Amino acid sequence: MLRHAMRARGLDAMLVSSPAGIRYLSGFTGSSGFCVVTHRGAWCLTDPRYRLQVREEASGVRPVVVRGGFASAIARHRLLRGCRWAGVEEGDLTFAAYRGLRKESAPCLLKPAGEVLSHLMGRKDAAEIRTLRRAVEISDEVFRDVVALLHPGMTERDIAAEISYRQRLAGADGDAFDAIVASGWRSALPHARATGKRIRSGEIVLLDFGCSVGGYHSDMTRTVVLGRARRSVRVLYQVVLRAQEAGLAALRAGRAAREVDAVVRRAITREGYGRYYPHSTGHGIGLRVHEQPRLAPASSDRLEAGNVVTVEPGIYIPEQGGIRIEDMALVTETGSILLTSSSKELVIL
Amino acid sequence: MLRHAMRARGLDAMLVSSPAGIRYLSGFTGSSGFCVVTHRGAWCLTDPRYRLQVREEASGVRPVVVRGGFASAIARHRLLRGCRWAGVEEGDLTFAAYRGLRKESAPCLLKPAGEVLSHLMGRKDAAEIRTLRRAVEISDEVFRDVVALLHPGMTERDIAAEISYRQRLAGADGDAFDAIVASGWRSALPHARATGKRIRSGEIVLLDFGCSVGGYHSDMTRTVVLGRARRSVRVLYQVVLRAQEAGLAALRAGRAAREVDAVVRRAITREGYGRYYPHSTGHGIGLRVHEQPRLAPASSDRLEAGNVVTVEPGIYIPEQGGIRIEDMALVTETGSILLTSSSKELVIL
Repeated sequence: MLRHAMRARGLDAMLVSSPAGIRYLSGFTGSSGFCVVTHRGAWCLTDPRYRLQVREEASGVRPVVVRGGFASAIARHRLLRGCRWAGVEEGDLTFAAYRGLRKESAPCLLKPAGEVLSHLMGRKDAAEIRTLRRAVEISDEVFRDVVALLHPGMTERDIAAEISYRQRLAGADGDAFDAIVASGWRSALPHARATGKRIRSGEIVLLDFGCSVGGYHSDMTRTVVLGRARRSVRVLYQVVLRAQEAGLAALRAGRAAREVDAVVRRAITREGYGRYYPHSTGHGIGLRVHEQPRLAPASSDRLEAGNVVTVEPGIYIPEQGGIRIEDMALVTETGSILLTSSSKELVIL
Repeated sequence: MLRHAMRARGLDAMLVSSPAGIRYLSGFTGSSGFCVVTHRGAWCLTDPRYRLQVREEASGVRPVVVRGGFASAIARHRLLRGCRWAGVEEGDLTFAAYRGLRKESAPCLLKPAGEVLSHLMGRKDAAEIRTLRRAVEISDEVFRDVVALLHPGMTERDIAAEISYRQRLAGADGDAFDAIVASGWRSALPHARATGKRIRSGEIVLLDFGCSVGGYHSDMTRTVVLGRARRSVRVLYQVVLRAQEAGLAALRAGRAAREVDAVVRRAITREGYGRYYPHSTGHGIGLRVHEQPRLAPASSDRLEAGNVVTVEPGIYIPEQGGIRIEDMALVTETGSILLTSSSKELVIL
């Protein structure tokens, strides 16, 4: 698959430096690695700390344990012998690493080609979808449990700690990202952290979290109110919910990703809240929390069967509060399959 | 301080793209940001999601909320007006971001200069040291509590979940990294993850974890045995402990960082275990878990007062087990101050 895509782009080699890309290609999960794929073979380089682990985990690639930098090891082992063009992951490779590679790869030339790999990674196979479903199920289960224990006086940080702890106990390897728990006026910060602020009855509580299982991530957002919600909040909630459901209904293989964003944005703008929706509608998710396709106004991605994406509109009124609702869905030829199963009820009694 | 260092390197501007660098310069903690420092001023760019947060958090820089890429916003706002050379953080900036910046910054030229900022960040001031101490104290406290609840039958993942949960409840913002909990033969993997493996009486349990407080990190490792340790393990433990204490004793401002590594490595090699010590001796720690100075054979760093470093030798015998002991210490003019206070006893009864 990768070699086919490489040929189509005129690449003789692909240099894979991102942890997600390395895991995708080889199964190796160490923090220090580098994969080289050419027409002659595929190698996974790592350092001596991972000597045992790379043998245990990697398949389909030859493990190479090296001291010193990966760039000079590629030259020393002549892995790019006979290659004219090698693709690099320009969105992950640091500029320093690029400079080292460029020097050591000569006469082979480097070319930005991260898209070749990320496009493949965006189309999930059955095993990947099973793993993603497991991650989603854990987050759904933890949402239900955490909602049941929410009470006035808990801090945002307490709630984040419960989410993280319970995801691990339920079988997750860890959090997909630091959980966002934002209450009251702080829910108007679209990417607030959890703080020591205590939640109070009647306040909005926005929870955005996920976990990782076997390298694959879940990501979900629910916004709830403990007790009685103000009318203005209930109205806002319905606007977001309708926009989110319109976005889910718009998913289908072949559709431009920016059209899904447009459907959601129109639903919010129509109600007069367009200026309070400052982010994009969603993103692919898999071995990376954010990957292709991007559901955003300027996206040039087109949805394909096997994409797993989030749909997560929000409205944030400064100094008052915000609402966001986020599900994960699998794109199919005819539409989509909703993966997240948590209730979208606003009020928790 | 930064402008002084910039002048000494012939830089008219510094472009700061790393989350740690942005937080250091401005206090802003959003996931999307970019700082520009020139002789004319300092700016912190972010996207509309962080409109409120950047105003709340950033100081000493002018917040600029932009749509679209940061590179084009820098050009549009003419932030590099009159600048000939701008430094970039080559170890953080991706190649894709570098290409965008290079295009939009012309006629100003870019130059790798991450060291200018990371060197400043390595020398902690009193407030930073207080925050680091708080992070270390939380990890020390959690180690004591978690050791007390260790019992045969717990999985590595259960233990990792307890560590993470208790660090948050004790006031941490989150984990510094996914805790390593490796038991039995798995302790021979220097960077193992926590798995579903159950710990058994008499087995080695290696715990490597840390937390973050206000952006600053702790990092510690202890290796324990539940119940009775085999004689070979007790011998190995003493070798690592003596090497680690020799490393701590070698810390002092003015000393080459590689000399500290050499002291530790000699202590291990002398006992015949040199080939089982596959990693470097330690690293600076602060807003990044790994930063300057690096305590490694090839390091060109020199220790300075205010550096906070880890000293963490280990010996790993394949298929048998591994031992690692890691403390954090503050480098002073005359030596060092140990920050980690957890016991280094091997056996837990």
